[in-house]
Amino acid sequence: MSERPVIGVFDSGFGGLTVLRELLKHLPGADFVYLGDTAHLPYGSKSQAMITRYTHAAIFELVSHGAQLVVIACNTASALALPSLQASAPVPLVGVIGPGAEAAAAIAPAGGTAVVLATEATVASHAYAQACAAAGLSAVEKACPLFVPLVEEGWIDGSITEQIAEVYLREALSLTEEMPAAIVLGCTHYPLLRPLLGRVVERIAGNVPIVDSAEATARRTALVLPDAVADTGVEPAIRFFATDSAAKFARLGPSFLGRAIEHVETVDLDG
Amino acid sequence: MSERPVIGVFDSGFGGLTVLRELLKHLPGADFVYLGDTAHLPYGSKSQAMITRYTHAAIFELVSHGAQLVVIACNTASALALPSLQASAPVPLVGVIGPGAEAAAAIAPAGGTAVVLATEATVASHAYAQACAAAGLSAVEKACPLFVPLVEEGWIDGSITEQIAEVYLREALSLTEEMPAAIVLGCTHYPLLRPLLGRVVERIAGNVPIVDSAEATARRTALVLPDAVADTGVEPAIRFFATDSAAKFARLGPSFLGRAIEHVETVDLDG
Repeated sequence: MSERPVIGVFDSGFGGLTVLRELLKHLPGADFVYLGDTAHLPYGSKSQAMITRYTHAAIFELVSHGAQLVVIACNTASALALPSLQASAPVPLVGVIGPGAEAAAAIAPAGGTAVVLATEATVASHAYAQACAAAGLSAVEKACPLFVPLVEEGWIDGSITEQIAEVYLREALSLTEEMPAAIVLGCTHYPLLRPLLGRVVERIAGNVPIVDSAEATARRTALVLPDAVADTGVEPAIRFFATDSAAKFARLGPSFLGRAIEHVETVDLDG
Repeated sequence: MSERPVIGVFDSGFGGLTVLRELLKHLPGADFVYLGDTAHLPYGSKSQAMITRYTHAAIFELVSHGAQLVVIACNTASALALPSLQASAPVPLVGVIGPGAEAAAAIAPAGGTAVVLATEATVASHAYAQACAAAGLSAVEKACPLFVPLVEEGWIDGSITEQIAEVYLREALSLTEEMPAAIVLGCTHYPLLRPLLGRVVERIAGNVPIVDSAEATARRTALVLPDAVADTGVEPAIRFFATDSAAKFARLGPSFLGRAIEHVETVDLDG
């Protein structure tokens, strides 16, 4: 019996559980270690030096628990820390921004423009626009700061959230002259809004494909670890770590992950 | 010519500018030093030890700039740090929670119940319920996590915010059997929603007074510094300090303060 590969997943909190959910779908032959830096979230308001320091510490923590590859599931850390850590990391790193941009470019017609929905911090970094440009795709970026608190409130359906999504999407569409080639969900919380966003996009813009960076990241990871793609019938082992009070993690995590979270261990990245 | 008293105002960010706005109204004879700990916000997800450490450092920073009294404008710091710092502080401290609770008790009929609207962290601390109980008033507390991002988006009016406010207020009203004696705005961001909240409260609950902790805190401060209540006709001097990037502070601050913010200096509380 061959040993199962272990994939580390890092996020500033529990949002990256949507990425873990896709990894579990696409790499059922792997085991997983998840680390949420709940003590320091949100990363959006922190300096690049601080984010790089925490991400570096998190990678080594995950490797100490057996990770042979680390997925940086946090958009802000992918934008600000990944480029400088990639060369020196002890294991391969996969971020969420490159795969999201490339998945959008793959389905977009030549000369098309993608609309990227993300947090204020991710939009301010312009990391998606740069990654889309590198993949040959124009992009406009729209910050949707109400989406994260709406998801954390559990308001992922219903009229109020639809109205807010319509305001954001109309503003996003006004940034480009043409019909968008794709809409990219550039935040780990947004996949929970995907059904609602699909309805609103259909109503106001017609048939525009929605690209989920979480899913694109899982597909990319599957290319790096092809041995983990086959389902061996064995339930994957998952360990969860957080850097502070695990209460919110345990309360909200299951709706992000789509399965129960039995136990969250606490670790310290400041040491 | 007598010297003008200097009042220090501390908050985790720029929300406390609503408290400074009320202080400027009620104590026009004072000068002000404001410190927003933007590097460490939000305080809601931090431990009591950490919040106490930053609040302690902020008090000494403000005193070093001449403050003879410090207003802790942050609800979380008022709840978690103020009680332990009060005795040892080099100057008098005024928090926002006690004045808000006492103002509600002063207008409530005997045996009434207040409804406190606040952030998740403030509600979890039950500091308002305790302060109301100490003032002889029952209270129910309702977390309204969408209000802060709505205010920061600038959506302080309009149908979407009214619908959200109605959901929160109906949930809050369902927590008590009787008509509330007062509605307490227990977060520094909420005064910007006061006109909208007034309309929604009127529609769904009738004539219930709204108590603004910011205003109650300014009235309390005026009792401690009666010499600063008279308007001398001299424009108060205000210095602004922040612990990180002043961009958001400068962008959103003026709508909280109700006047322009010329210049924000950077200080470090970690040293």
